[in-house]
Formats: sequence, structure tokens, C-alpha cells
Amino acid sequence: MRRKSFESATCPVARSLDVVGDWWSLLIVRDALYGTRRFSEFRRSLGLASNVLSARLKALVEQGILANGPAAEGSSYREYRLTEKGEALLPVIVALGQWGSEFLFEPGETQAPPLDAATGGELRRIVVKASDGRVLKSKDLVVGSFLTPSCG
Amino acid sequence: MRRKSFESATCPVARSLDVVGDWWSLLIVRDALYGTRRFSEFRRSLGLASNVLSARLKALVEQGILANGPAAEGSSYREYRLTEKGEALLPVIVALGQWGSEFLFEPGETQAPPLDAATGGELRRIVVKASDGRVLKSKDLVVGSFLTPSCG
Repeated sequence: MRRKSFESATCPVARSLDVVGDWWSLLIVRDALYGTRRFSEFRRSLGLASNVLSARLKALVEQGILANGPAAEGSSYREYRLTEKGEALLPVIVALGQWGSEFLFEPGETQAPPLDAATGGELRRIVVKASDGRVLKSKDLVVGSFLTPSCG
Repeated sequence: MRRKSFESATCPVARSLDVVGDWWSLLIVRDALYGTRRFSEFRRSLGLASNVLSARLKALVEQGILANGPAAEGSSYREYRLTEKGEALLPVIVALGQWGSEFLFEPGETQAPPLDAATGGELRRIVVKASDGRVLKSKDLVVGSFLTPSCG
């Protein structure tokens, strides 16, 4: 079915999914966050056809999530770098990875989560907190326009 | 193009997207986290055709993200409730919403983020932290199998 656009939705989650809800786009952002810069590297990592990858990269540049420029002054190589807006997706990607690590792997299965480069240690589990630091579950939240018709 | 399955991928992000990377699935999870339980409520909130919504809900039940049962003992109403695995997607949804709030709205545009029910206050911004509490950017991370061919 044709995807409904939530570009004008008042709920931030729907609007975000309108921009990065494409499955490949989030994998491209993941690769970019973890250091991939060049077209050939994205293609190898994702196993995507060049025309499909081109279209996805172009859309991410148009959204201001990636910027495309020469790898270095005078270089003929071009590369994709995350903008501030793209870098800000890091908590989304890490939260998604931690969920997958916990629920989608069998005990003992190989996985290599992102680690703190300074110490080699694991990252803290991402949780939702109140301004005073209490950890919140969904039952502890109230939501306004998420549930109004403007969100659908 | 036909979507590639990453069910056997060693990178948790890819495996997560294989399960919840469908755009509608995440919006259903969002609604469930924010209190929606009944089929008719999901349909009204999402504006989805019944057959499409049925298929998406069925898939989420099969994945163990939602459980489907009577609303109360002896009730003929059935409802969908998040399992522990589904509830654990809260940080993903909140992080996605916070990103949208920051980058996809004009100043002054109406939006209603989830709030702490106990105080009515805003939630803390979700960030990535090392085990000692340092806030980490993508340049502060090292990643193993994310960048290996097994991830593509």
C-alpha cells in the first residue's frame, strides 16, 4: 500500500518516521555513525544495488542528514558525512541495537555492540528518565497530541 | 525492491529493523506504549485499513511484541497489550520522538511530547553514555561486527 505521509503530523514520532522510517535509510545512518564515508563502502556494507543506494543517499542529503563533499581539499573522492541532524540520530540507533541485543539473539550468539573507544567498555543501557532522574516506563507517561486525530 | 532479510545478521541494529523496521509497526508500538489497546482505537489513530492493521497486529503478536487477549475476565472485547519485549521499545520510540521534536518542527509549531505523569514535567533528553556516565558521540565509539561483511 502507498505510504501515508505524516510530514504535517503534530506527533514527533510520526514525523521522524516520515523522514527516516525507511529501513535502508536507518542502516545507512548506522553505517555513517560507525565510520563509513564512501559510496563503495556503503555498497559493500549494505549489499545494495548502486541505483538504490544512490537514491537513498540523495534523499538523506536532501533531508539534511548527510552532507556530500570532497574527501579532502583537492581530492577527487567524494564522501558522505553526517550533519549535526544526522549525528543526533545516534541515541535512536544505539537504543534500537540494545533492544535487538537483548531480545533477538540467543544466548551465546555472536554479536559485537558498539563500545566506548576510550575504555573498550560497554555503553550504558538507554532508558527513559524524568527530569529528576527517575526511570520511567510507559505507564508513567502522559501524552497529548500523540493520541489525537492529528496524529493519524 | 524486495527487502533483504537480516534475521541472521550479527549486528543488532539490522536484526531489530528486520522485526520493527516496518514503519506502521513502530507507529502501532508507539500507540500501544501511549495507552491504545483496542483494534478500533488503533484503526482510528492510524487511519489504516482494517485488513492492513490486522496483518500488522498479527505480525507483532507473532514476534512476541504484543499479546492479544480478552480485555477483562469474561469480556467479549479483546485487546492488545505490550509484552516485556514490546515495552522495552520505549527508549527507541522516545529517542525517535525527541529527534523529530528537535529537527523536524519549526519554532512555535504545535507539538505535544510525552510527559512525566507524576510531575507533568518534560523527559530528559536521551543520550548515549559510557559506563562511567560520560556522554558519547559517534566518534567516541568503536564497533566490531557492525562493519564486517556479516552485517550486510
